[in-house]
Amino acid sequence: MEKTLTFRVRYSETDQMGSYYHGRVLDWFEHGRTELSREMGLAYAEWEDRGIYLPVVETSIRFRGRAGYDELLEMSVSAERVGNVRIRFLHTITHAETKAPVCEGWTLHAIVDHEGRPCRIPEWIAELL
Amino acid sequence: MEKTLTFRVRYSETDQMGSYYHGRVLDWFEHGRTELSREMGLAYAEWEDRGIYLPVVETSIRFRGRAGYDELLEMSVSAERVGNVRIRFLHTITHAETKAPVCEGWTLHAIVDHEGRPCRIPEWIAELL
Amino acid sequence: MEKTLTFRVRYSETDQMGSYYHGRVLDWFEHGRTELSREMGLAYAEWEDRGIYLPVVETSIRFRGRAGYDELLEMSVSAERVGNVRIRFLHTITHAETKAPVCEGWTLHAIVDHEGRPCRIPEWIAELL
Amino acid sequence: MEKTLTFRVRYSETDQMGSYYHGRVLDWFEHGRTELSREMGLAYAEWEDRGIYLPVVETSIRFRGRAGYDELLEMSVSAERVGNVRIRFLHTITHAETKAPVCEGWTLHAIVDHEGRPCRIPEWIAELL
Repeated sequence: MEKTLTFRVRYSETDQMGSYYHGRVLDWFEHGRTELSREMGLAYAEWEDRGIYLPVVETSIRFRGRAGYDELLEMSVSAERVGNVRIRFLHTITHAETKAPVCEGWTLHAIVDHEGRPCRIPEWIAELL
Repeated sequence: MEKTLTFRVRYSETDQMGSYYHGRVLDWFEHGRTELSREMGLAYAEWEDRGIYLPVVETSIRFRGRAGYDELLEMSVSAERVGNVRIRFLHTITHAETKAPVCEGWTLHAIVDHEGRPCRIPEWIAELL
Repeated sequence: MEKTLTFRVRYSETDQMGSYYHGRVLDWFEHGRTELSREMGLAYAEWEDRGIYLPVVETSIRFRGRAGYDELLEMSVSAERVGNVRIRFLHTITHAETKAPVCEGWTLHAIVDHEGRPCRIPEWIAELL
Repeated sequence: MEKTLTFRVRYSETDQMGSYYHGRVLDWFEHGRTELSREMGLAYAEWEDRGIYLPVVETSIRFRGRAGYDELLEMSVSAERVGNVRIRFLHTITHAETKAPVCEGWTLHAIVDHEGRPCRIPEWIAELL
């Protein structure tokens, strides 16, 4: 499953180079995962309510182009199972109109319970994926 | 009691106007309160360990001058009791060398327990103040 | 003129108390001003393109209630002229469904040119207001 | 050359999982690069004054352990030349006392001029490295 959404660069996300601050991309990726999980049928907020947490354990990002304040961007997000205990999310962000590249990357997530102990992917998540 | 500390503007705290983003000042104020509480003899992290939380209920800030990336700033912080159930922290930030004004403001805090219920100021906090 | 919009609390905007971090409210307010300016007929990004900047010179905020990750909030924003050289924006944020209060506040803005020199409100802004 | 520095997790950098928000690590890495450049003899703010910018073009991070509010962390940063047009910075963050791992990663930087055009590494940077 893939989710595509649009959003605008906030003023607070710019830096003095006049483009988006690169660290804010991880906030955007998470925003995308939130919307993907809602699309999958069970919002991530409910995953945590069920006692399942997905801390990020690794990420890799390529920054490919500038994006200024208030520019309209488009993000595509998808998820894939990695073995029995991890999930990878893939994100691509472009300018909404021109499709000019902004950045792309993935985040790898462990699955842990409320105590932080690693879990296998629960059946209900495997089905969502 | 008053605590004075210095810190530098991070790149991530600038915006495209080339100065600090005004919203980051609340992060700086909190950084100052953290150092003040340590100076008072009991770090705020331990306040929370004792089940006492200080959510901000009101703030007022005046932004008085620019401060760019990596510039060295100086913050003074002090605390005062407001009746039996609130604490106010006062913060002033200037350039460290010239003392040129950057911003100043206060944050007013409720005192609540782990459930979010309002409490009177505990004896041990009253003594710290 | 007033603009009402909805948005969700991002995970990155929560803190360890489990609600939104109070400092992120200034980012939200700015997001609201951006959407209001677009509604007024000229996006703020274009104000800066015309050489007019609106740095925040003062703010006052009351934090009135909790709002957790992914909760849907509603913000109302309006603007008013303050004499010939300042503009005040007023913001109110509530839970979108219940209208339970989250926070409210104003930001007061100077009007400056590219060199940071104070200006009178340009005619085209006065008309937008 | 390597620079080691200590810093504390700010409250604003925590999230509702009770540890640091993973996206803030890129802010920390940049803070480390700033201090490394100062140690090298020419603060990065002066690099930009000389018309040289180092936008991040790629990053890879492994998140290895929790770190809570106000915990004292230690970061080591070093830099290496990658061919004639790129610089890589390597960062490792641990708990200051126990050396328990928090995260580690690198950022790869292009070298561009004020117009955003790629440049070869200037002589004075090559010498700093």
